[in-house]
Amino acid sequence: MPRDLSGDAARWSARTEASLLAALPDPALAPQRLHAAMRYAVLGGGKRMRPQLVYAAGRLLGAPDERMDAAAAAVELIHAYSLVHDDLPAMDDDALRRGRPTVHVAFDEATAILAGDALQTLAFHVLLNAPAPAELRLAWAATLAEASGVAGMCGGQALDIDATGQAQSLQQLQHMHGLKTGALIRASVRMGALAGGAEPVTLQQLDAFATDLGVAFQVRDDILDVEASSEQLGKTAGKDAANDKSTYPALLGMDGARGTLTELAGRMQAALAPFGERAAPLAALARQAVERVH
Amino acid sequence: MPRDLSGDAARWSARTEASLLAALPDPALAPQRLHAAMRYAVLGGGKRMRPQLVYAAGRLLGAPDERMDAAAAAVELIHAYSLVHDDLPAMDDDALRRGRPTVHVAFDEATAILAGDALQTLAFHVLLNAPAPAELRLAWAATLAEASGVAGMCGGQALDIDATGQAQSLQQLQHMHGLKTGALIRASVRMGALAGGAEPVTLQQLDAFATDLGVAFQVRDDILDVEASSEQLGKTAGKDAANDKSTYPALLGMDGARGTLTELAGRMQAALAPFGERAAPLAALARQAVERVH
Repeated sequence: MPRDLSGDAARWSARTEASLLAALPDPALAPQRLHAAMRYAVLGGGKRMRPQLVYAAGRLLGAPDERMDAAAAAVELIHAYSLVHDDLPAMDDDALRRGRPTVHVAFDEATAILAGDALQTLAFHVLLNAPAPAELRLAWAATLAEASGVAGMCGGQALDIDATGQAQSLQQLQHMHGLKTGALIRASVRMGALAGGAEPVTLQQLDAFATDLGVAFQVRDDILDVEASSEQLGKTAGKDAANDKSTYPALLGMDGARGTLTELAGRMQAALAPFGERAAPLAALARQAVERVH
Repeated sequence: MPRDLSGDAARWSARTEASLLAALPDPALAPQRLHAAMRYAVLGGGKRMRPQLVYAAGRLLGAPDERMDAAAAAVELIHAYSLVHDDLPAMDDDALRRGRPTVHVAFDEATAILAGDALQTLAFHVLLNAPAPAELRLAWAATLAEASGVAGMCGGQALDIDATGQAQSLQQLQHMHGLKTGALIRASVRMGALAGGAEPVTLQQLDAFATDLGVAFQVRDDILDVEASSEQLGKTAGKDAANDKSTYPALLGMDGARGTLTELAGRMQAALAPFGERAAPLAALARQAVERVH
């Protein structure tokens, strides 16, 4: 990757951390336990892929970085809230995330529920109070609400739960992931583009790109799960596929999944080509989603 | 109560139900279980006090009812989400609400968590997409985010949990309730007033009124708890007070709590007097909060 791209990524990471820190409530103030849990959930590392997408999409439109700060923080706050709630015992019951105890383990379940709730509210708070024109704040917040609710992330999580233990068709799998993880990825790109004042036709082109990116991200995730299983658990890909667990490799086979990924990668680069050099950071993020090893 | 006031209340109730029904996702569409849980949580009765406050405050400013519909629905959606999450086993662990099984009992815990999450998002969605000027939608949504998050309802719930089993001072009790239930009551009045185009000085006057209303509501709640205990459980007020449970009657005695309520009632009516006849519905709601028997 050319030096200037990784320079952008590092700068955008730093801006994201600064915005999140500024938005989070003071841990010295009561209720301290809630505030501490919110910080723990948000500041625990993570790739910050969604904020990077916001900045990269804004850059494509020529917007200065500072115009994307609020949107970048907001999408990450929604992502963090969803992880806290998804990890709860009644949901996925995960005790570890990013190598650390999950929020309900490090704190307690009640605090984890409340921290997730408050992080969702905070995402809207940050957008609605951003130093940006009223119309932009409205468009951002409406985009985020659409992507987070029943027609997006929450709906996708519910579909995923409903499908537990049932085989899904490729179409069902795509629909579920399109809501569960795809909607927020699309919203990230759109919110960055909105910050840059994108015309409707550009928003549409970038939305098609972001839809592919969401699928690519999930296909790669599923492939990595299989590869990790093979190496770490001594399981083979074929065993996973036989397990009734609906994943892209299970439905398409590993070669089929890899082929899909290659196809998506080509389509994403083609979609960005007309935008020239300004699309380089977004193209780099698309490549990362396809090639990442964790 | 004069006939026209109860006519207003009935009309506002009907508008609220219609707006909520229009906002809730279609139960025939997937994910059905999530959609059903959201409807169950929202359409299960309830006094709709917060929507009534929105309409009454708008009326005080001379705004037509339809301008308050979105705000009325949004405050009720936030209230409904908070009840679903507060009832969860990890929180208050309540199995019954309004005489029906709570959402996690009628459905399951995962669905209850998701339904609460989605109801919060829906509240913002409704406001942000309301048929109202951009500046009003922004002011509404910012008011609701402020009232719902760490500086409002969520923060108050966390303070309440932190205080479990500990005696609280009157000041601590007031601060906790001011966030936990007071913030959304204040937001309801403010959002109605914003719909009516209230000037800053009017917003301030109504905010003082709504702050008193929030306290009065809670004092009455605590008094009703004691009275219900005496009749239904054979417990005396003195026993409750001896129990380390911080309530207004426990801290002030029953006579003291009743005196506070009378004082608040007088102050609320005085605060509304300058607004004349237009404040009648709001004054009636204040009287109801003070005099209600359930």
